[in-house]
Amino acid sequence: LERCPDAEVRVMVINTGGTIGMTYQNNVLSPEPNALVKALRRFHILHDEPYAQQTCLYDCYGPPDNTLVLPLSKKDKRVVYTVLEYSPLLDSCNMTMDDWAMIGKDIEKHYEKYDGFVVLHGTDTMAYTASALSFMLEHLGKPVILTGSQVPIYEMRSDGRDNLLGALLIAGQFVIPEVCLYFHHKLYRGNRVTKVDSGSFNAFSSPNLPPLANAEVDVRINWDMVWWANTTSKFQVQTLMNRNVGLLRLFPGITTQTVRAFLQPPMEGIVLETYGSGNAPSNLADLLEEFSKATERGVIMVNCTQCLRGSVITRYATGKALSDAGLVPGCDMTPEAALSKLSYVLAKEKLSTQEKRKMLSENLRGEITHLDETRYCLRNN
Amino acid sequence: LERCPDAEVRVMVINTGGTIGMTYQNNVLSPEPNALVKALRRFHILHDEPYAQQTCLYDCYGPPDNTLVLPLSKKDKRVVYTVLEYSPLLDSCNMTMDDWAMIGKDIEKHYEKYDGFVVLHGTDTMAYTASALSFMLEHLGKPVILTGSQVPIYEMRSDGRDNLLGALLIAGQFVIPEVCLYFHHKLYRGNRVTKVDSGSFNAFSSPNLPPLANAEVDVRINWDMVWWANTTSKFQVQTLMNRNVGLLRLFPGITTQTVRAFLQPPMEGIVLETYGSGNAPSNLADLLEEFSKATERGVIMVNCTQCLRGSVITRYATGKALSDAGLVPGCDMTPEAALSKLSYVLAKEKLSTQEKRKMLSENLRGEITHLDETRYCLRNN
Amino acid sequence: LERCPDAEVRVMVINTGGTIGMTYQNNVLSPEPNALVKALRRFHILHDEPYAQQTCLYDCYGPPDNTLVLPLSKKDKRVVYTVLEYSPLLDSCNMTMDDWAMIGKDIEKHYEKYDGFVVLHGTDTMAYTASALSFMLEHLGKPVILTGSQVPIYEMRSDGRDNLLGALLIAGQFVIPEVCLYFHHKLYRGNRVTKVDSGSFNAFSSPNLPPLANAEVDVRINWDMVWWANTTSKFQVQTLMNRNVGLLRLFPGITTQTVRAFLQPPMEGIVLETYGSGNAPSNLADLLEEFSKATERGVIMVNCTQCLRGSVITRYATGKALSDAGLVPGCDMTPEAALSKLSYVLAKEKLSTQEKRKMLSENLRGEITHLDETRYCLRNN
Amino acid sequence: LERCPDAEVRVMVINTGGTIGMTYQNNVLSPEPNALVKALRRFHILHDEPYAQQTCLYDCYGPPDNTLVLPLSKKDKRVVYTVLEYSPLLDSCNMTMDDWAMIGKDIEKHYEKYDGFVVLHGTDTMAYTASALSFMLEHLGKPVILTGSQVPIYEMRSDGRDNLLGALLIAGQFVIPEVCLYFHHKLYRGNRVTKVDSGSFNAFSSPNLPPLANAEVDVRINWDMVWWANTTSKFQVQTLMNRNVGLLRLFPGITTQTVRAFLQPPMEGIVLETYGSGNAPSNLADLLEEFSKATERGVIMVNCTQCLRGSVITRYATGKALSDAGLVPGCDMTPEAALSKLSYVLAKEKLSTQEKRKMLSENLRGEITHLDETRYCLRNN
Repeated sequence: LERCPDAEVRVMVINTGGTIGMTYQNNVLSPEPNALVKALRRFHILHDEPYAQQTCLYDCYGPPDNTLVLPLSKKDKRVVYTVLEYSPLLDSCNMTMDDWAMIGKDIEKHYEKYDGFVVLHGTDTMAYTASALSFMLEHLGKPVILTGSQVPIYEMRSDGRDNLLGALLIAGQFVIPEVCLYFHHKLYRGNRVTKVDSGSFNAFSSPNLPPLANAEVDVRINWDMVWWANTTSKFQVQTLMNRNVGLLRLFPGITTQTVRAFLQPPMEGIVLETYGSGNAPSNLADLLEEFSKATERGVIMVNCTQCLRGSVITRYATGKALSDAGLVPGCDMTPEAALSKLSYVLAKEKLSTQEKRKMLSENLRGEITHLDETRYCLRNN
Repeated sequence: LERCPDAEVRVMVINTGGTIGMTYQNNVLSPEPNALVKALRRFHILHDEPYAQQTCLYDCYGPPDNTLVLPLSKKDKRVVYTVLEYSPLLDSCNMTMDDWAMIGKDIEKHYEKYDGFVVLHGTDTMAYTASALSFMLEHLGKPVILTGSQVPIYEMRSDGRDNLLGALLIAGQFVIPEVCLYFHHKLYRGNRVTKVDSGSFNAFSSPNLPPLANAEVDVRINWDMVWWANTTSKFQVQTLMNRNVGLLRLFPGITTQTVRAFLQPPMEGIVLETYGSGNAPSNLADLLEEFSKATERGVIMVNCTQCLRGSVITRYATGKALSDAGLVPGCDMTPEAALSKLSYVLAKEKLSTQEKRKMLSENLRGEITHLDETRYCLRNN
Repeated sequence: LERCPDAEVRVMVINTGGTIGMTYQNNVLSPEPNALVKALRRFHILHDEPYAQQTCLYDCYGPPDNTLVLPLSKKDKRVVYTVLEYSPLLDSCNMTMDDWAMIGKDIEKHYEKYDGFVVLHGTDTMAYTASALSFMLEHLGKPVILTGSQVPIYEMRSDGRDNLLGALLIAGQFVIPEVCLYFHHKLYRGNRVTKVDSGSFNAFSSPNLPPLANAEVDVRINWDMVWWANTTSKFQVQTLMNRNVGLLRLFPGITTQTVRAFLQPPMEGIVLETYGSGNAPSNLADLLEEFSKATERGVIMVNCTQCLRGSVITRYATGKALSDAGLVPGCDMTPEAALSKLSYVLAKEKLSTQEKRKMLSENLRGEITHLDETRYCLRNN
Repeated sequence: LERCPDAEVRVMVINTGGTIGMTYQNNVLSPEPNALVKALRRFHILHDEPYAQQTCLYDCYGPPDNTLVLPLSKKDKRVVYTVLEYSPLLDSCNMTMDDWAMIGKDIEKHYEKYDGFVVLHGTDTMAYTASALSFMLEHLGKPVILTGSQVPIYEMRSDGRDNLLGALLIAGQFVIPEVCLYFHHKLYRGNRVTKVDSGSFNAFSSPNLPPLANAEVDVRINWDMVWWANTTSKFQVQTLMNRNVGLLRLFPGITTQTVRAFLQPPMEGIVLETYGSGNAPSNLADLLEEFSKATERGVIMVNCTQCLRGSVITRYATGKALSDAGLVPGCDMTPEAALSKLSYVLAKEKLSTQEKRKMLSENLRGEITHLDETRYCLRNN
C-alpha cells in the first residue's frame, strides 16, 4: 500500500451532538463526550487503519484522535476526515442562533483546507439549522452536509453508520455547492426539509422538492436540480442573525389577544403558519388590524402554510385579507426555511424594511418556488 | 317504478360552507348561498328525479328544494338525503367553537330521523371540526362524515362530486358509529386526520392510523378498526367547549417571554407542539419554570409532537424535563385532536384538575394509541 | 352566447371499447354499443347543449349523435369532440395487432382536422396498445391520449368521467406530441406504463419515469420531460407490425425444452423477462445454447427485467452470459414497450438484422433510458 | 463477563449464496467461498469475540469457524448463530427444486437444536424459494427467515449487514412460526412477496398483505397478522416437488400454437398470468379449447393476475371463459406462490386431481385471501 495523494480528498466532520453519539444512562439517552472517534475507529468500513499506518497518514493530516480515513471508494478515492467535536455536545433541542454561528465560523475557518463538510446534529432541529446555514454561508462553493441518526451509532441496529458514510462519500467526492441534509439514503436541499417521523429511519421529507441525490445500490446525483449560485463572489459567512423572530401557528379560536401578545416588541419578524393555501380568519377585524399595525411599525410577517405540501396563493377571499394586511407570501417555503431566512434578512441592517421584504420574497438559495418560474406550466383547468 | 320504503335510507347533509359550494367572483372564490341543491339536481348520479316523481318521494320526505335521492345503489338501497344549508355559509378559516356547537345541536335535533349525517365543510379546519365533533358527540351510534373538496362542485374538473357521493353512500349504508372524514376515496377516523396538501385532491392524511375504509372499485370497510363505544348510553351532545385553549409550536430561539405571554390568563389549556418524540429545550431553566408555574396554577398542557408521524415518549433527557414540569404526554394524538379534546375536557366543570388530566391521557374516541395497548409488540431491539 | 371560433379546439375520441362503456348484464360486465354518446350528453360537465344549440355547433362540426362540446375551460377554450365508436366494441383482452393498426389508420385519416386524439380502451392491455401506437405513429406532432376506467361511466361512483374529462382537456389544449396514457389525474408517457392494480382507481404506474403531467387542483405539465421528436418529417403511420413476437418470463425450473418450444419458428422476436438486473440461469448450458442458436438463425431477443422498477445491466456473472448469447439489453424498457417495439422494428423489412438490433437498443420515443444519457450521474459508490 | 445460558438463543444461518457474499472479480460480481464468517467476525456489531472468549462459548456451541454471537440485545438476549455454508455457493438464478429440498432437509436436520433459521439467498429468486419453503415446511413452529442484499456485505455501503442483523434478531427472539422474508427493515410473509426493484435497497414488496413486522427505531411485530397453523402436528418437510410446472404470461398476439407448445407433456401444472382481474382473450376459441383439453387430460392451471396488486375475480365476460375452461382462480396469490404451491400439491401423489384442485384454492399458509374471509366487508357500491 502506497499513498496516492491525488486520490485523497478531505472532509471535516463537525460533531455538534445529537442521538448519533448518545449512550443510554439510566435508560435515558444522553450525549457521550470523546467517544465518537474511538467508536468509528472500531468499524473498518468507517476507518482503514492499515492504510493509515502504512502511508503514515497521521503525519500528514493530524493525530489519530481526530483523523480517520475511509477504505478506497468505488471512484478510487480515499476520503480522509477530521472530526471536530464540540464541547459540550449539544442536544439539538437546545440549539440557539449562537450555535448556528459557531458552526458557520468553524466552516469558514477551515474552508480552504477541506473539500467538503459534514455536520453531525440531532434530528429534532436539524431542519432549522440546515436552513439557517444555507443562508448564513454566502457564495458557498463546497458541500456542507448535515446528518445524524435516530439510533446511536454504538447500537447494533443503527442508522448512524449509513448516514455518516453516505454523507462523507458525497461531501468528499461530488461538488454540490449547497447546504444539504443526508438521511436514509437520500440527499436533500437543506432549506427544503422538515422532520416528519419520530419513529422511522426515514425521518425527513422534502415535500415540495425531489431529493438532490439517491444513494442506494448506486449513488445517483440529480445534477439538474443542484443549485449553482450565480456569482463568483468569495465565500463568506454572515454570523449575525436577528433573534427577535418567531413562529405562530393559527388554530381555530385563536384570539386577538394571543396574537397581540406574540407580536409585541421586541418581536421584529413572524412566520405565520396559516391554513391551506395561506388563509386566516377574515372575520376577525381585530386580528387583521393587529397584523396591519405590526406591519406599520416595521414588523415583517411571512405567510407560510401549515400543510406539509403546497404553496401560499391568493385564490380565496380569506387569503387576500392577509396580503392586504402586509404579509409577505411565503409560497412553498417550509416554516423552518422562512424563520431562518427572516432571521438572516432582518440582521442585514443596511437594508430598508422595503428591501428586506423584497429579499424575503426572492429565491436566495433555492428555498422557494415561485409558481411562474417553475418548470411546470400552471393553469387552472 | 314503485317505492320500496324498506330500501330507503335517510341521510342529513349539513352544508356549513367551504370550497365545495364556492364560485369565482372577480377571480376569487367565495361562497354562493342557495346554489348547492340546484347544482346537485342537475347531476343524475347525485339525484334521480324520475324516481322522486314516480314515487311521490317529496310528499314523504320533504320539498324538492332540500330533498334529493341517489340512484339505486349496488346494495339495492336508495339514499334519500336532505340538505340543511347554513346561512351565512361559513369559510372554514372563520369557524369558531360556536359553529361546532351549532353542528352538534343540529345533529342532536335530527338524530332519530336519519341513518347518518354528512357535514360539508371547508378543508382548512375540517380536521379540527372533525376532532371536536368526535368528542362533543357522546355515545354516538350513527355515522357522521365530514367532507368537502379542493375544487368547487360546479367546476368541470372537481373532486366535490366524488367526495359527496362517497360520503352519502357510506353514511347511509354502513353502521360506523364514529365521526369520520371522507376524502379522495378514503374514510378516516375524524380525530386522526390532518390536512397535508393544499394543492392535491389527496389533501388529508391519517398519519398514525390506517383508513377505516377505501372506496375505489369496491367499498372496503376495515371493520376491525371501527371504534365501538363500550357503553349503551343514550346519545347526547356536549356543546359546551372551553375557549381558553391554544396551540404553541416550539422553534429554536423561542423565548421565555413569548411562552409567558402565551400562557397568561385567561389561558387554561395549551397544546405544546414539541420536537421529535416530545422534546423541548432543557437548558432554559426559565422556560421550564414557566411550565411548572402554569401547571401549578391549574393550566393543563398536552405534549404533542411537531412531526407528522410518531409519538411522544420519554426516552431522551430533554423529554423527561417536560413531564417533570407537569405536561400530559399526548402520545400519537394530532395537535388538532389534542386541542379539541382539551377544550372538551376543560369544559367539564364538575371534574377536578386531576380528573381532567387523567381524562386527557385516556383513549376516549380512538384518538390516541398508548404503546402498550397497541396491536404491535413494541420492544427496543 | 356567441360562437367564438378561435376559442374552439377539436378532439377526436376513438371509442374502441373497454370497461368505461360497459354495462352489467346478468351480473357480468359487457360492452354496450351506441350508448356512450347518449350517456355523455346527460352530464352537463361533459357536454354543454345550450352552447351547442345557440351557436349552431352541429352545423359546423357534425351531428349531435357524435359531436359534443365541453363547457368553457379555465383557459377560455371550448373543446369540441367527435366520438368515433368501433363496431363491435372490443374487449382489450381480445385486442390484436390489427386493432392497433386500425386505430393508427383512423388517427392518420383524421390527423389534420383535429388538435388531439383520445382513445378509449380497456385497461387490461392499454399499456401494450399505448406502447405500440407510440412506435407506429412516426413524427407525431399532436397529443394522442389513451384512457379508460375501472368502473363504467354509467355507474354512480366511476373514475370514467374524470379520466375522459382530463384526457379531453389535455388533448385539446396542450401541444404534447406524444402517445400518452391518462389515468387517475396523471398523464404518463404511453410506452412507460404498466397496469399494477386491478382493484384501485390508481391502476397504472410508470415505474422508471415520472408522470408528464398532474391534473389535480391545477393542471401541471412537466414540460422538461415532454419528448420532442428531433425531425420535422411529416407524420405517418406504420401499420405493419410483425406478429411473430412473444414474451417469455423466466421462472425457477424452466426447462430447455420449454424455451425451445417457445423459440421455434415462426417466432422471430422474443422479450425475455429475466431476473433482477437482467439475469438468467447460467448453469444450464443447454438453455444458453438455445439462445445462441436462436440468435444465429436471426431471432432477436430483448432482455428485460421482471422487476417493476430497475434496469438491465451486466454487473453479474449470470447477466453476462445472456449478452454473450446475443440478447439485446432492454435497459429500463417495460416488457410492454419492448414487445411492441420488437414487433415494430421487425416489420421494417429493408433493415438488416444488425440494423434492427441496433434500432431496438436505441431510444426511439423516450421509451428507454441509457444509464449514460441520464440526468443522473451514476457511479458505484 | 459470565455466561448466562438462559439468555442465549440459537439461530442457524444457512448461507446458500447470493450477492450478500459476493466479491468483484474483473468488475463482475461472483460468489466468494469461505469468506463470509471471516468477514462477519470483523464487525463487532455482528460478533462479540470478547464475550465468546470469556464465556468459552466455542466449547459449548462449536468452533469459531462457524460459530458467532451477537452483542447483548435490548431484550437482554444473546443470539448465538452457526453458519452452514453451501458448497458451491449458489447464484439464485440457478436455483432448482433440488436446492429448495436441500434447504428444507437442512432445516429438518437441525430443527430441534435451534430457535430459528436464517437463510441467506440471492434476491433474484428469493421470493420463489420463500414461497416454496412455506409449503414444504409443514407444521412449522419456528421462524425461518430468508434474507440477502443488493450490495455485498464486504462493501463500505451495503444493505447486507442490516438485513442479516435484523433477520438474526427476529429469528432468535420472536416466535413467528412462518417462512418469512426480511429486507430493508421489514419482515414479510414469504409467500406474499415479489421482487419489485433491481436498483433499490427496498427491493421487495408484499402487494396484497402488509408487513408482519417493522424494524426501524423499534421492532414492531404485528401479532394479529402472524399465521398460526391450526394443528399440533409434528414438524415435517415435504421435499418432493413436482418439476413439471410452468409460468405463462399472456400478451397481446399470443398464439394458440405457443400455448399448445407450452402445455404439451410432460407439463402437469401451469400458472397462467392473465390480465387485470383474471382475464384472457375470449375470442380465440382455439385458445380456450387448448385450456379445456389440458384440463381434461389432468393438467392443472391456476389463474393469477399480471398486476402487482389485486385479485382474480369473475366480473367480466372474458374472465368467466377461463373458469369455464377449468382454471383454478388464484385470487390474490403471487405467481411465485402459485407456482411453488402447484409444484407442492402436484407432488402429493395420493391425492386425486379433484383434491389437488381443491387444495390449490385453499389457504394453506396464509398465501391467499378469499374475498369473503377477509377482514374487509366487500361490496360493490
